[in-house]
Amino acid sequence: MSSRILLDHGSGGKIAGRLIQELMLPAFENPILAQLADGAILDLDGRRLAFSTDSFVVDPLFFPGGNIGHLAINGTVNDLAMCGAVPLYLSAALIIEEGFAIEALTEIVKTMGAAARTAGVTVVTGDTKVVPKGAADKLFINTSGIGLIPAGVDIAPHRARPGDRIILSGTMADHGMAILTKRAGLAFETAILSDCAPLNRMTAAMLAATKNIHVLRDPTRGGVGAVLNEIAQSAQVGIRIYEEKLPIRPEVAGICELLGFDPLFVANEGKLLAFVPETDAERVLAAMQQDLLGQSACIIGRVTADHLGRVLMETRIGGTRLIDTPAGEQLPRIC
Amino acid sequence: MSSRILLDHGSGGKIAGRLIQELMLPAFENPILAQLADGAILDLDGRRLAFSTDSFVVDPLFFPGGNIGHLAINGTVNDLAMCGAVPLYLSAALIIEEGFAIEALTEIVKTMGAAARTAGVTVVTGDTKVVPKGAADKLFINTSGIGLIPAGVDIAPHRARPGDRIILSGTMADHGMAILTKRAGLAFETAILSDCAPLNRMTAAMLAATKNIHVLRDPTRGGVGAVLNEIAQSAQVGIRIYEEKLPIRPEVAGICELLGFDPLFVANEGKLLAFVPETDAERVLAAMQQDLLGQSACIIGRVTADHLGRVLMETRIGGTRLIDTPAGEQLPRIC
Repeated sequence: MSSRILLDHGSGGKIAGRLIQELMLPAFENPILAQLADGAILDLDGRRLAFSTDSFVVDPLFFPGGNIGHLAINGTVNDLAMCGAVPLYLSAALIIEEGFAIEALTEIVKTMGAAARTAGVTVVTGDTKVVPKGAADKLFINTSGIGLIPAGVDIAPHRARPGDRIILSGTMADHGMAILTKRAGLAFETAILSDCAPLNRMTAAMLAATKNIHVLRDPTRGGVGAVLNEIAQSAQVGIRIYEEKLPIRPEVAGICELLGFDPLFVANEGKLLAFVPETDAERVLAAMQQDLLGQSACIIGRVTADHLGRVLMETRIGGTRLIDTPAGEQLPRIC
Repeated sequence: MSSRILLDHGSGGKIAGRLIQELMLPAFENPILAQLADGAILDLDGRRLAFSTDSFVVDPLFFPGGNIGHLAINGTVNDLAMCGAVPLYLSAALIIEEGFAIEALTEIVKTMGAAARTAGVTVVTGDTKVVPKGAADKLFINTSGIGLIPAGVDIAPHRARPGDRIILSGTMADHGMAILTKRAGLAFETAILSDCAPLNRMTAAMLAATKNIHVLRDPTRGGVGAVLNEIAQSAQVGIRIYEEKLPIRPEVAGICELLGFDPLFVANEGKLLAFVPETDAERVLAAMQQDLLGQSACIIGRVTADHLGRVLMETRIGGTRLIDTPAGEQLPRIC
């Protein structure tokens, strides 16, 4: 490791992974944290709970399609949903820079309240810290959350199995590109909106269709590409995806190409990946497509028993390309 | 309200209270948050859970008696203990400034691991964000936590009743003065150490002595004075304390006097206030005094049925003084 923290240490890439493996896991040594899922799954007096935390440092605070308040609520709601849990209770902890406009804070906090109601969760506890001007950039928000996991649900990254179909709930890269275009002050003709949304109603519908779902993940930092690599390594399976099946809005694809971003590694905030045994894949896909947030859901690939720990993509022109996790982040502070 | 956030909005004082009352409570409207206890008490499928969150922005990160890692673990452990809960699981979310020394980060994270083991809790989930140089001051840590509340325990600020004895577990103002002396580079002859410590073993011993405890609070931001005012208002009772009974180390008292701080309003990080009915007060006091952290515990006052919502102090010279919550914070970034 270098002797100083780099921006890449906070990415979804390999450098961040090393920091967690070499520093965090040894310090907090325990089998629950070592799973490195979106949330911890706890046995509490006979009930299975999901518990998750996320800090939000997005810049700018307001972006096309939302603000940091949407991200903070939906981000933790989604982490709980990706454990197969019904999200119930959230905490909200704000670190505010002295001098921040109360009008903007009010709008953000109201957004958080509205987003919580939309997702069906309650913000039950909080904390507010103010630091002197210059000690923080405007506003950071941490949310943590608790959900209940229904009986019979067993969802975790290591449960991917050869034969599983991989379903993506919708288009890639909308959130990252919405942030980027806003941040750069780029005046594109077509406005790209963040896809930030709560996924817990869709996961509830999927689990109502069948409990036989192996993995759920929301491809946020690092995008679809990094998350697939994490799952391939966690489960020690191979993953094969089809380039022609990957859903992306034409305007997002265009901007990615123009600016040199690979949409496979750009963050999403309202999408999920599901790994489902072949027998149940169509049923889960149908449940997703009936949800407003899953209308463009499609099978983008499958799990294989070869090239273990690696992700391959069958390209449009008939070749095969290795999809490797990048070392760092293409876009810092996107969430 | 002013149109900009002030440092005082993050204090334990009146200005911070107004921000919570006028902005946070309406946005998140729900009866659990409205209790404004150290943590939320949740009914989860028949089990009573405590859930709490705190962000730590202390400056400097390393201070006499500890570092931000001790604060982050013990702070949330103590918030859960103040709900009468047995703290079990914690999350840890770090916001790190680009360029921060990995050696310092390693020491802090190891401290967190050790502090968690000391307190008997497990850090089960986490998050790491890195922001560009200048966007945060070195390191902020959020911890959230979950604990289980044993049957028969009912502890909340509004439960203070006339006749309750008020017990303070030890000396006042150690933490705040330790931070101040370090921050100011003051070279005092006697080093003052932070009292940062986990209080959950002491609260377990107290609750083993009797379940008949009405209120527990750790007097952190705002100190003993602000917390007593909050309880007086929450329960709509009067509080009377005795100046001669207030425990304080002579060296801390000396520095407070020298620098013009009222120790009643200086933060503590390893002390608690207990409100106990007269019938059980001596039993609880004895249990506290048997704990290493409660050796100097003593009864500092009582709850009255007059001067509702107010805190009065009987002074050493025989007078009576109103102890009002200050508008803001004497010392920003002490936790």
